[in-house]
Amino acid sequence: MTALPAGVHELSFTGPPQPADPAPLTVTFTQDGTGREILGFWDGGRNYLARFSPSSAGTWRWRTRSEEPALDGLSGEIEAAEPAGPGPVQVVDTYHFAHADGTPFRPVGTTVYNWIHQEPELRSRTLEAVSDAGFNKLRFMVFPQGGGYVEHVPELMPFERDSAGRWDTSRPVSAYFRQLDDAVMSLAGRGVVADVLLLSAYSADFGLDALTEEEDATYLRYVVARLGAYPNVWWSLCNEFDILGRPVQRWDRLGELLARIDGHQRLRSIHNWVEFFDHNRPWVTHASIQDGASVAEPGRASAYRDAYLKPIVLDEIKYEGDVPLRWGHLSARELVHRFWVATVSGCYASHGESFVKANGSLHMVDGGPFRGMSPARLDFLRRILDALHIAGLDPIDKWDDPEYVAGQARRQYVRYFGRSAPATWTFRLPQGHHGERLEVGDQFQVDIIDTWNMTVLPVERTFTLTEVHRNDAFADGPPLLLPEGEAIALRITRRQ
Amino acid sequence: MTALPAGVHELSFTGPPQPADPAPLTVTFTQDGTGREILGFWDGGRNYLARFSPSSAGTWRWRTRSEEPALDGLSGEIEAAEPAGPGPVQVVDTYHFAHADGTPFRPVGTTVYNWIHQEPELRSRTLEAVSDAGFNKLRFMVFPQGGGYVEHVPELMPFERDSAGRWDTSRPVSAYFRQLDDAVMSLAGRGVVADVLLLSAYSADFGLDALTEEEDATYLRYVVARLGAYPNVWWSLCNEFDILGRPVQRWDRLGELLARIDGHQRLRSIHNWVEFFDHNRPWVTHASIQDGASVAEPGRASAYRDAYLKPIVLDEIKYEGDVPLRWGHLSARELVHRFWVATVSGCYASHGESFVKANGSLHMVDGGPFRGMSPARLDFLRRILDALHIAGLDPIDKWDDPEYVAGQARRQYVRYFGRSAPATWTFRLPQGHHGERLEVGDQFQVDIIDTWNMTVLPVERTFTLTEVHRNDAFADGPPLLLPEGEAIALRITRRQ
Repeated sequence: MTALPAGVHELSFTGPPQPADPAPLTVTFTQDGTGREILGFWDGGRNYLARFSPSSAGTWRWRTRSEEPALDGLSGEIEAAEPAGPGPVQVVDTYHFAHADGTPFRPVGTTVYNWIHQEPELRSRTLEAVSDAGFNKLRFMVFPQGGGYVEHVPELMPFERDSAGRWDTSRPVSAYFRQLDDAVMSLAGRGVVADVLLLSAYSADFGLDALTEEEDATYLRYVVARLGAYPNVWWSLCNEFDILGRPVQRWDRLGELLARIDGHQRLRSIHNWVEFFDHNRPWVTHASIQDGASVAEPGRASAYRDAYLKPIVLDEIKYEGDVPLRWGHLSARELVHRFWVATVSGCYASHGESFVKANGSLHMVDGGPFRGMSPARLDFLRRILDALHIAGLDPIDKWDDPEYVAGQARRQYVRYFGRSAPATWTFRLPQGHHGERLEVGDQFQVDIIDTWNMTVLPVERTFTLTEVHRNDAFADGPPLLLPEGEAIALRITRRQ
Repeated sequence: MTALPAGVHELSFTGPPQPADPAPLTVTFTQDGTGREILGFWDGGRNYLARFSPSSAGTWRWRTRSEEPALDGLSGEIEAAEPAGPGPVQVVDTYHFAHADGTPFRPVGTTVYNWIHQEPELRSRTLEAVSDAGFNKLRFMVFPQGGGYVEHVPELMPFERDSAGRWDTSRPVSAYFRQLDDAVMSLAGRGVVADVLLLSAYSADFGLDALTEEEDATYLRYVVARLGAYPNVWWSLCNEFDILGRPVQRWDRLGELLARIDGHQRLRSIHNWVEFFDHNRPWVTHASIQDGASVAEPGRASAYRDAYLKPIVLDEIKYEGDVPLRWGHLSARELVHRFWVATVSGCYASHGESFVKANGSLHMVDGGPFRGMSPARLDFLRRILDALHIAGLDPIDKWDDPEYVAGQARRQYVRYFGRSAPATWTFRLPQGHHGERLEVGDQFQVDIIDTWNMTVLPVERTFTLTEVHRNDAFADGPPLLLPEGEAIALRITRRQ
């Protein structure tokens, strides 16, 4: 059993065996007049737990409410230490993320859908592989996956069955969900966001796609009660929600429920197959979008920023691998290119690997070590992003910049040449609509980034703006020589 | 004075001079238990009018309500004839438009912002030019435009001023709004949609951008009362709304008011400069978007369809002309290309002309005859669209079709080659996610469309599918020879 992550407090209670509602108590924590309501949950037998991550140090008083007399009206207090880590991730500057302490968080994630449904040894190796590769977010499913490329069916299932053989979501299997606890905590220990796919169409083999709305709600309350305190949790309400063919209002109600019951207010999204959810809905904190074509060429994905005014995470842009299906045979070069296109579009993206393995499965299904050539390049990209001086990259002149420069006006920029491979570059920056205007005399340092060979070469020269026009600005002097080949980027930083 | 369009009924009343509210009465029309509430308005002196377009023939009873005793409790009936024309335009099939009688409407519009604020002769010449060129929608402003390229300031202004010199929206100038009536009716007479820009930042020179929310609402009620009965009206709440810097909630409230008070339920949109409005809001019937880059390359604009699930009208994709500012010097070829890109993206677009005229103005400001080469090609495009057998063009395989084929599965398709100019084409259709699947043996007729030279050449050969795969389908036989040059399209129609 993995230890609770730093900052997570757990209260234990004793109550009736087998409650009617598996999340039958509410615990209100208060400090200085601020209150937060947390669901408590049944953990098997007569054991009940409530988990809480205080947002500030000091004493928090708590009190329970429950229909179960044994769980009602209990009270006490906890002593919270100063936060040990950077804290949970929140949305900042409309399109970006940062930890509670202000440290920017740039998601460069991967996908192992069926991770937690493998034997323990493979689970551990996946965790290590993901973390060692530098991925900082992992998409995985709570429910087991069925269908193609699934070569292992777990023994544990999330719920007991009722007398008619239907899943009874009011009777969760504690051992199953303790395994989920462990998975999330082990990611927390390595600083990786657990992008928890709460529902999906892929669990149809087990009938877990056919719960009623009420059953979904019971399950949702339970899983939020269990996991919500972990600081690395992001909720994805459903993977490819539109495959399930439910009315969109049902998803909307479930999303609103999620926002209402989650006292920790972890980030919330819902992920599409072909039809989009309305990511403008208030309960959606960031748009999680499947659209491989959006980053196949520059100039596309930024439309989603305009439409949703939220961070855009392109959680499926096709995979590096060799399966015959067209979602799963990108070359590593192509996938890395797409990440850089996403980057200068002001968006984030997710990786996955789909080489057919010796066992017939894919890494994106069951995990294990990576085989592809993209993870190292994506780690390099993440390190470039983490070294930025600014909160995030925004397209500077989104409707008129054929060069796709992103950054923050007059501070720092990234330019990505993509599939073109010019021998030289003449210093030019677009002005853009927002932020400070460039001025004659502004000085810039340029670094040449080889996104494939993973090198950063500082240019030994300062670029000083000599011409500033309405829409762009130029520096005098000979053009900059660029290295041969595609996929070169520039980091352009103003000297202060 | 132009005659009322067919189907529009006008009731006259006598009431107090100068009411506190210029739209002080509500008239409820009922037929067979169905009721519709229409605002009546003050037309100067002691004259009040209420205009109504019944949605069905036969007797409609009416009754007034008003705070003004002279206008309250009046009643009567009108006899409505069978609809004479195709009726007002509505949204159909999520992304498209059709008249009430089912006739598809494919907007190919143009823009003359300051049209109604010119001398009568120029106004008439503009009307003729727009209509003769085949444009079926015209964007123009209710309030006069100031600023660059405006060479004529009208004498008439929309409101009286109060004693402090502020515009008093409760005292509209009847002569001004009769002129607006005339403008809309003259467009109706030629079958052109009046895309009425209710507010804009361009009226700042006259202080008309600085009304309070309450004043906006008074004006909105008045103009809806005056124009709502005309079957060719579309409302655009504001042109480039985000220039005005108001809280987005204020626009949302005004949009909701518009939806609530318009008994005729004309189409409603709001148009942006740099920041987008949330076109998912329920009161928005279609997204009116300024984004020149969205159609500079294929594969972009369709993102807006996914985001908004409504018709997308790209009401500003830059203009054909020669002004130095970058929004106004597209070549005709480039503008026509952008319209075709919009078309195979499943979207619609608007034209405008920005050659500097002898008087120092631009066609898109004050009108007159067209000088550019795009209008004829856009008329050709509109005729191609009107000849389609289907409601509209939808990207068939939006995330994986590098050839940008749009249409309706297994019925009719349009393929646009854009800037590539292949000598031959091998028959291929993508399957797509929706609708019927292609089958071996399906037979197709192909027409070669030269979008610039405006020719349609039927191919004297039937293409029969011989191979149908998971994602696409092919017809045997030698490749089709294509004419030389860019901007060729194909219309591919299944033989029934």
